[in-house]
Amino acid sequence: MSDTPDSVVHTYIQTHRETFLDDLAEWLRIPSVSAQPDHDADVRRSAHWLAAKLRETGFPVTEVWDTPGAPAVFAEWPSADPDAPTVLVYGHHDVQPAARADGWLTDPFEPVVRDGRIYARGAADDKGQVFFHTLGVRAHLAATGRTTPAVHLKLLVEGEEESGSPHFRALTERHAHRLAADAVIVSDTGMWSEDTPTVCTGMRGLVECEIDLRGPDQDIHSGSFGGAVPNPATVAARLAAALHDEDERVTVPGFYDGVADLSAAERALIAELPFDESEWLRTAKSHATLGEAGYSTLERVWARPTAEVNGIGGGYQGPGGKTVIPSSAVLKLSFRLVAGQRPESVERSVREWAGARVPAGIRHKITFAGATRPCLTPLDHPALQSVARSMGRAFGRPVGFTREGGSGPAADLQDVLGAPVLFLGISVPSDGWHAPNEKVDVDLLLKGVETTAYLWGDLATALR
Amino acid sequence: MSDTPDSVVHTYIQTHRETFLDDLAEWLRIPSVSAQPDHDADVRRSAHWLAAKLRETGFPVTEVWDTPGAPAVFAEWPSADPDAPTVLVYGHHDVQPAARADGWLTDPFEPVVRDGRIYARGAADDKGQVFFHTLGVRAHLAATGRTTPAVHLKLLVEGEEESGSPHFRALTERHAHRLAADAVIVSDTGMWSEDTPTVCTGMRGLVECEIDLRGPDQDIHSGSFGGAVPNPATVAARLAAALHDEDERVTVPGFYDGVADLSAAERALIAELPFDESEWLRTAKSHATLGEAGYSTLERVWARPTAEVNGIGGGYQGPGGKTVIPSSAVLKLSFRLVAGQRPESVERSVREWAGARVPAGIRHKITFAGATRPCLTPLDHPALQSVARSMGRAFGRPVGFTREGGSGPAADLQDVLGAPVLFLGISVPSDGWHAPNEKVDVDLLLKGVETTAYLWGDLATALR
Repeated sequence: MSDTPDSVVHTYIQTHRETFLDDLAEWLRIPSVSAQPDHDADVRRSAHWLAAKLRETGFPVTEVWDTPGAPAVFAEWPSADPDAPTVLVYGHHDVQPAARADGWLTDPFEPVVRDGRIYARGAADDKGQVFFHTLGVRAHLAATGRTTPAVHLKLLVEGEEESGSPHFRALTERHAHRLAADAVIVSDTGMWSEDTPTVCTGMRGLVECEIDLRGPDQDIHSGSFGGAVPNPATVAARLAAALHDEDERVTVPGFYDGVADLSAAERALIAELPFDESEWLRTAKSHATLGEAGYSTLERVWARPTAEVNGIGGGYQGPGGKTVIPSSAVLKLSFRLVAGQRPESVERSVREWAGARVPAGIRHKITFAGATRPCLTPLDHPALQSVARSMGRAFGRPVGFTREGGSGPAADLQDVLGAPVLFLGISVPSDGWHAPNEKVDVDLLLKGVETTAYLWGDLATALR
Repeated sequence: MSDTPDSVVHTYIQTHRETFLDDLAEWLRIPSVSAQPDHDADVRRSAHWLAAKLRETGFPVTEVWDTPGAPAVFAEWPSADPDAPTVLVYGHHDVQPAARADGWLTDPFEPVVRDGRIYARGAADDKGQVFFHTLGVRAHLAATGRTTPAVHLKLLVEGEEESGSPHFRALTERHAHRLAADAVIVSDTGMWSEDTPTVCTGMRGLVECEIDLRGPDQDIHSGSFGGAVPNPATVAARLAAALHDEDERVTVPGFYDGVADLSAAERALIAELPFDESEWLRTAKSHATLGEAGYSTLERVWARPTAEVNGIGGGYQGPGGKTVIPSSAVLKLSFRLVAGQRPESVERSVREWAGARVPAGIRHKITFAGATRPCLTPLDHPALQSVARSMGRAFGRPVGFTREGGSGPAADLQDVLGAPVLFLGISVPSDGWHAPNEKVDVDLLLKGVETTAYLWGDLATALR
């Protein structure tokens, strides 16, 4: 598929490995914590550090894009081949908060290497996985003898991902023409395990709502009035309980409209993964599985739409008892969506479903938060095949396919740019994202470098 | 039925009315707030004041009974007739907290008379309704020419009713032989309205429980795990929702075992009361009625057992959203019981019902608080007829019959002493129990005096 000699890539990476790791360590020392205002200057410093490093790498265009919050970095390296496809890499340069007191064995902003792993905040999420693109594109050039990449390469590295990306969609809309691409590579995920390289094919979407219920004008005596007036806490509970049938299927009419069911091929691929339920339960800190009848645990979290109660509250919750009928109650729900579902349709369905279930005497208000669309790239999409092929070549074995149960700004890129979103990540579940002692495995990081060294040439052919 | 000349009673009451009201005002000035430790001395002072006043009234035995909390007052006036039945009057001398700042027009502990009503904390609940027994028994003696009451008369006036009567049951058990009676008159309730004197025939019982549910060891990500593990907030909601069927009947198996259904006669008596639903809803501060199919609102709150959600909580309840599967949830339920139901049976049924509905992976703990038994005196009980007759004589019209939806320590007296419990109250719903500007109508208070002036002679015959 690609004519890049693997041995040249290997040699190039080995030659530049120390400089690459030293540079990454320098970046990791910048505590670019977007959630903490006292790190605002650090987040800016991180953006400018990255822009300079990308220029040094060879990107002829590097810009720091301001937002009402933290800045993003944009870089572009056009291919000399005018017919080359355009690829946009997405990542982020901000990190989660971290402090020694949280349980870090060493300073989270002073990277150390132990047992072949770099320990530092952002090592895996996401600086390491952004940074492998710098050495990767150089290796691609070295191995192919090119002076420009085989694809028009763009990078967008935002600075607010760990704060919920509040300005990301607006940023992408404002710069849509600069960001235009034939494919988006999200470089902010992981793979199944060290022994099982995988490519993620999609993420679930998200609809969130809060249902406020008001009954009596104040808490009233459950002896004097109990059994004779509607109780908003009971109504909240009845709504939450009515969300699912006995097969744990969501009962909201129209909820499943458009859902793309799993193909036999994809079910087979999911079934091939070395899934250990008790290990999964340990990760979930849970004590049993429960979900939609007819689907496996992985199918449930990756490929099925769900409804969850994120919060419920009403009446007295303190110690002991209080015999009241509460004046109000609240129910916070979230719905995870899969390909084929539209957030606006789900919102309408939920609104109608809830409204029809609130009895006379209870006033209700339903409020939706910003929704996230699902994204899914079909298994036979040439760009997805290209990512899988390049990763398999780097790892020396065929890769599996996963999905991600969560939701993220990647879907905004798919939506705004109208391009397929692909996921390339070499992090493993034990890397401790958002936790103390976050790490990344150096060998896996270099497999990321190697994957991209093959990927641009492969994609140039695949997307031609 | 009774040979007490009404005119003598009227004259006696008119003659002593001013002294009676002055004495009551003196008592009302003592802020005997049992819930506030800085009023402990006032509660003790109130007990001793009452004991002295009962001695002055003529009770040969007056005692202040200590408890681990506030003291109770016991008084006894044996009848010279050794075959006379024994009657125990129950009331309380402690009051709810009150402060000008709560919306009182005048000092809550400086009684004032406006428009024929005494405004003060405790005027109706319960000092006024305890105090009418002092003038009542004197009027009884004056009108009958007796020197001792026609019944062996006992009074028990506790000091912790507004604090949940934590030591009341132990007090009654310790003094069961002193309190032994053929009938108990609870003098701590009210009647339908000024124009509709009524006698209460019973109170509902109470079983309270808290169900604690634990799922994941900590809140977990609803994207990564949603739809695949049991959610304790959902389980809490499902329990609460499963409490009732679509007819709003409680579904807990065995819950209705033993329930004495309303007789046609009692339903007719309830239907005769001048019930105005919109006025009732205003009192309930509610905007619609909802309850067990086949019963009226009054039947639902007075004569039907119910289940209510007093509190439910789990997961995120703050502003905005948080996409978690919560680690735990709590459900606080109360069940009101009617005659024929046993708290211990209901507790067992609820425990089994809940246990069977918690899925694998969720640990649950169910905790019951102290229960209260229901009490009900049959309409044809001679003592109830005697109370109704005496009250009708004082008010110059036949009285109706009500029940009380709430629960109270009266049931303990029925249980410990094995005597029927009767309710005699002249307070009206607008008297503002527990609210600012509590009041009692002087004319109604004197009707209370007059009722007891007839009652002891009537009961002596009725219970003979």
